[in-house]
Amino acid sequence: FQPSSGNIINAELEKHVRLLHQAVGNAKADDKYIVFGTGVTQLLNGLVIALSPNDIDVQPAKVVAAVPYYPVFRKQTKFFRFTGYEWKGNASDYVNTASPQNIIELVTSPNNPEGRFHHSIINGSLAIHDHVYYWPHYTPIAQPADEDIMLFSMSKFTGHSGSRFGWALIKDVKVYDKVMEYMTENTEGTSHDTQLRTLKLIKEILLQMKTKRETTADINQFGYQTLSKRWAELTKLVASSDRFSLQNLSPQYCNYFGKVRDPSPSFGWLKCEWEQDTDCEALLRSAQIKTQSGVLFEADSRYTRLSLIKTDDDFDQMMEKLKPLVHAQRSI
Amino acid sequence: FQPSSGNIINAELEKHVRLLHQAVGNAKADDKYIVFGTGVTQLLNGLVIALSPNDIDVQPAKVVAAVPYYPVFRKQTKFFRFTGYEWKGNASDYVNTASPQNIIELVTSPNNPEGRFHHSIINGSLAIHDHVYYWPHYTPIAQPADEDIMLFSMSKFTGHSGSRFGWALIKDVKVYDKVMEYMTENTEGTSHDTQLRTLKLIKEILLQMKTKRETTADINQFGYQTLSKRWAELTKLVASSDRFSLQNLSPQYCNYFGKVRDPSPSFGWLKCEWEQDTDCEALLRSAQIKTQSGVLFEADSRYTRLSLIKTDDDFDQMMEKLKPLVHAQRSI
Repeated sequence: FQPSSGNIINAELEKHVRLLHQAVGNAKADDKYIVFGTGVTQLLNGLVIALSPNDIDVQPAKVVAAVPYYPVFRKQTKFFRFTGYEWKGNASDYVNTASPQNIIELVTSPNNPEGRFHHSIINGSLAIHDHVYYWPHYTPIAQPADEDIMLFSMSKFTGHSGSRFGWALIKDVKVYDKVMEYMTENTEGTSHDTQLRTLKLIKEILLQMKTKRETTADINQFGYQTLSKRWAELTKLVASSDRFSLQNLSPQYCNYFGKVRDPSPSFGWLKCEWEQDTDCEALLRSAQIKTQSGVLFEADSRYTRLSLIKTDDDFDQMMEKLKPLVHAQRSI
Repeated sequence: FQPSSGNIINAELEKHVRLLHQAVGNAKADDKYIVFGTGVTQLLNGLVIALSPNDIDVQPAKVVAAVPYYPVFRKQTKFFRFTGYEWKGNASDYVNTASPQNIIELVTSPNNPEGRFHHSIINGSLAIHDHVYYWPHYTPIAQPADEDIMLFSMSKFTGHSGSRFGWALIKDVKVYDKVMEYMTENTEGTSHDTQLRTLKLIKEILLQMKTKRETTADINQFGYQTLSKRWAELTKLVASSDRFSLQNLSPQYCNYFGKVRDPSPSFGWLKCEWEQDTDCEALLRSAQIKTQSGVLFEADSRYTRLSLIKTDDDFDQMMEKLKPLVHAQRSI
């Protein structure tokens, strides 16, 4: 699993990505190939192309995701109207399909928006597992993920989303070869400036994880403490009236911290419970809170996604703006 | 022409790209929009998509390039089998077409491989002008290029090809919007690490151009001196026998240097003249010289592309390997 990947993949960085997964315990990387992308966004389309039939005489692959799903799946797949595949929406509609081998199922776990573990729901489908939120910051690490195709990114691990750096772990050499070909034809690989910076970041993170594990110098500890505190504040506020509800998440044992830990999701999946609040995104927008409507996730407009990944100041301001909505008198 | 381009385009870098074109005099940028790409490779496909009809009921666009052309044009367009376009090969076959508005013509000028100025040859086609070699290093600067769609890159200007950084200058706001959408759906923009490094490079280059214009501290002067010297050596060697020939390039007036200057192309477009040497690439390979066969450019196998962009050591070694071939006795 150290193939000749030309000058596209920095071998030292590849080695450190493997060390990182081993240290965090969130993915079994040692029997997988690794491809770098300009963000997971680029790899997603590359994997969809790689899994699609290249034969014009064969029916195009159906690309699906279980609702509620990350809106980029739909937008990207529809934008790149490759002849080999077509976007088909909700995976639930294909659970009993007779030809699952013709279905590419996009699975985000923990899921965006609501942070729960998801699995492929179509038996025998070609599944792409988007694990960008599978870090101790956001979720208990139950065991190393070990699916055939998995995606991770720096954006969600360290917050360096502007660097546009993600990677795919791939079991099958044929899929790997095809994704490498895609990376060559699309951008001739990723920025080496960014590969070198990412290498430096991961080296430092591994050192801190080793030497300062119990402190917030360990980015996993820092991420978890910050987000679990925010989640506790948000759930407490929302529970103080009957206007909104949030997804229900329970404390779970985490292998990384070696103990049961509180939930710390990246998003609140907020539901407007009052009958008149049919458009939850519009309601929050009226209070200057920017969210993503449930409609984008193919869910109901009573839902909206509230991001908890922001600066402390921005989070505090958001909470202040949310309070009047939560405590408003219901007009009957 | 300073549109709100979200967080994809660093405004300071955009400003300095405009200053660079003004200082070099190789493109009229002030009335164009600018989009950054992970190399020109990424922008190429984005522009082809942007110029293609988005209507399933309309015939797909035909993508063509005049032979000999940059092989990536064919490979990339065939790999990304988008429903809106199809690769159709040699532009010469479509010179008299009745529907030029349905043709996307890829024009490289100066051309890869042979370094001559090229223009669109299909009247009324949608042309994408690849100007990555239009720098004083490689060619006289006759006037600022002013086509509707133009491509430039750092790879060919400073040699930082590993940074994967190129840009498009675009006249029409609709094409610009579509390419920005492509950049969002494909990779959510380009690495900001690389944007910052590129900004630093361009600032330094502009300073050296201003203060040390007549010296090799000016990268344009350095590039020109290095490559014109290599071209003189190569043409002299090739002219010493009848086995090979090279493209014919003449001295021309250059606005940047303010004088007539010798040719300094990036590639030799080598032709094997002896009857038995039908595969020029194979012949050079037998002497451990790596070239790109004319066949890749849809030209004859008697041609092959010899790169002159390398370290001094590598160039000297290549010349040493070439000598025995040039001076070999012809077996009749």
